[in-house]
Amino acid sequence: MSKGKVLLVLYKGNEHAQQEQKLLGCLENELGIREFIESQGYELVCTDDKDPEPSSTVDKELQDAEIVITTPFFPAYITRERINKAPKLKMCITAGVGSDHVDLDAANERKIAVTEVTGSNVVSVAEHVLMTMLVLVRNFVPAHEQVIKGEWDIAGAAKDEYDLEDKVIATVGAGRIGYRVLERLIAFNPKKLLYYDYQDLPKEAIDKLNQASKLFNGKDNIVERVENLEDMVGQADLVTINCPLHEKSKGLFNKDLISKMKDGAWLVNTARGAICVAEDVAAAVKSGKLRGYGGDVWYPQPAPKDHPWRQMQNKYGAGNAMTPHVSGTSLDAQARYADGVKSILNSYFSGKHDYLPKDVIVIDGDYATKSYGQRK
Amino acid sequence: MSKGKVLLVLYKGNEHAQQEQKLLGCLENELGIREFIESQGYELVCTDDKDPEPSSTVDKELQDAEIVITTPFFPAYITRERINKAPKLKMCITAGVGSDHVDLDAANERKIAVTEVTGSNVVSVAEHVLMTMLVLVRNFVPAHEQVIKGEWDIAGAAKDEYDLEDKVIATVGAGRIGYRVLERLIAFNPKKLLYYDYQDLPKEAIDKLNQASKLFNGKDNIVERVENLEDMVGQADLVTINCPLHEKSKGLFNKDLISKMKDGAWLVNTARGAICVAEDVAAAVKSGKLRGYGGDVWYPQPAPKDHPWRQMQNKYGAGNAMTPHVSGTSLDAQARYADGVKSILNSYFSGKHDYLPKDVIVIDGDYATKSYGQRK
Repeated sequence: MSKGKVLLVLYKGNEHAQQEQKLLGCLENELGIREFIESQGYELVCTDDKDPEPSSTVDKELQDAEIVITTPFFPAYITRERINKAPKLKMCITAGVGSDHVDLDAANERKIAVTEVTGSNVVSVAEHVLMTMLVLVRNFVPAHEQVIKGEWDIAGAAKDEYDLEDKVIATVGAGRIGYRVLERLIAFNPKKLLYYDYQDLPKEAIDKLNQASKLFNGKDNIVERVENLEDMVGQADLVTINCPLHEKSKGLFNKDLISKMKDGAWLVNTARGAICVAEDVAAAVKSGKLRGYGGDVWYPQPAPKDHPWRQMQNKYGAGNAMTPHVSGTSLDAQARYADGVKSILNSYFSGKHDYLPKDVIVIDGDYATKSYGQRK
Repeated sequence: MSKGKVLLVLYKGNEHAQQEQKLLGCLENELGIREFIESQGYELVCTDDKDPEPSSTVDKELQDAEIVITTPFFPAYITRERINKAPKLKMCITAGVGSDHVDLDAANERKIAVTEVTGSNVVSVAEHVLMTMLVLVRNFVPAHEQVIKGEWDIAGAAKDEYDLEDKVIATVGAGRIGYRVLERLIAFNPKKLLYYDYQDLPKEAIDKLNQASKLFNGKDNIVERVENLEDMVGQADLVTINCPLHEKSKGLFNKDLISKMKDGAWLVNTARGAICVAEDVAAAVKSGKLRGYGGDVWYPQPAPKDHPWRQMQNKYGAGNAMTPHVSGTSLDAQARYADGVKSILNSYFSGKHDYLPKDVIVIDGDYATKSYGQRK
């Protein structure tokens, strides 16, 4: 008789699971933690059958699960309804970063802890942001398509190709990911880096950016906080979204806010799909208001076949740099979040509950972070 | 009666020339310099008919041209034979960077000057290098293809996806482009940056990289010169080629040198296609010796429809990040190289010949730079 049940929800690996042993984050490879969990006297159930609610395996197994582990890449939405039907649930762990797929208010009411492995993939996501910026600004996709199709039309690619240098780049959110994006942008010699957040960056973080900017480009004061979001997006050639999804950020980039952006700006979103209104973004790309949109987050996930971001293009047949939600699940990141999940479980099983503060989203009935919006 | 003829060879813009006025570098838009050239009493002939030798318009017009302006994107190869049939030729100008399409020894024998607009697109190319690295390492192409095809297979993309962080990255050549690549890599927190070149980087350049590395990652001594090329490529997870094409670099990355690379390394080449042996690279990607290859340079250009780099893939159907030769012809770069060509012409027409030293490749019968190999 086990001490309790751990429910692990992962995407299916299929043949890929056999081909690549480092693919820990798939159903078949179970984060490499079965042995550890069983050695602690717990039972592990692993599934990819998360939909639909309430008839999926996730719904069935939640009835007596103590811990549920999910990922942002293939999220099992832990709704209020599911929490209500999971009387033994004590903790939700996100193998990755971003726990918006859990109803945090409902979790607090039940004093269910929600934790994530914050350090595991902030770098991976920041790299994906830089890649997406370059792919859009330099017009990679149509150029690469020419190669595959046997074409050679320099003008056709170059007419929508720019340099990242000397652009005004703005981030919505300058937390662990947004700040790493700013660091990686400095050497590209931007005209200005702007950020919008609920608090100032620490002085030493700003100093670091300015010192690096001085070193590379002889420019001080490269980074600036803008208090008003509309002001900020109106100044930027490129906007990148790096904030969590919560009540205030849901649907934030709608027709209205996009209309305040510069004509022909680029928008990059690796945060959460629901921060943007899908149809409004697609219409803006089509009309030329946005030169392009890219990122790897969608709502819902998996994205349906007819999601407007799949076939979205600008007037030149370019401007789409979307991927499925893969930025945080590189093989390097998988090793880190598998390790991180094990650490959190270890802390839980030991009864010490000595989690890393940065990994805790809600605990003991309250928010442990302001990142998920200003709540009472 | 004109003072002389200027021959300008550019790629055709077709409908793109009308759509985008900033597309200065195409046949129709003539770098925006017709008025200037004619105001100086010279005649301008602009063509895209460069092949085959000796029956093309280029061959015909070269017979009495005094100046020929070409680009690396759509190069008119200025061979010894063509030089022999161009008795009035005094100067070859490259609108961009890299003048290997001119037979420099033959130019020297005739005391024809060869100049380029060095500053015009080193940044553009360095950005393309970073983009290509990220596209390969993070496995962008197969992930984006899933989006377009209506699929959602995280494991299928993630099984070949890594982070750039903590990799050993090596550049062959640390000149104006290679050094800018190193600058842009620092914030990505590489394990080590290696370079191979005929001379040491200046001390202040190394200090700058180390100071930035210390700021971002707390690591000094991030960059290291390696004397032996085989040693260097054997240590690197990712190799980037940033040297000119000359006798010693032609065919440098062949089966032998590739066999000295780490298994599963990535190779990025935005320098010149002929530095790599096309079939050897394609075979290495297919076998898995290379995890992927990317860049934008080919030999010849335009690349034929059956060039092995067009359909080259690794065992996962990934590992190809090729584009046509577009890195240095972004709209931002076009503005700069159109300006730069005008400055060089101005200096020539004035009789002062006060070119920027960095723009001069050969002059007065001799090499003005060591970058094109150590010649007598």
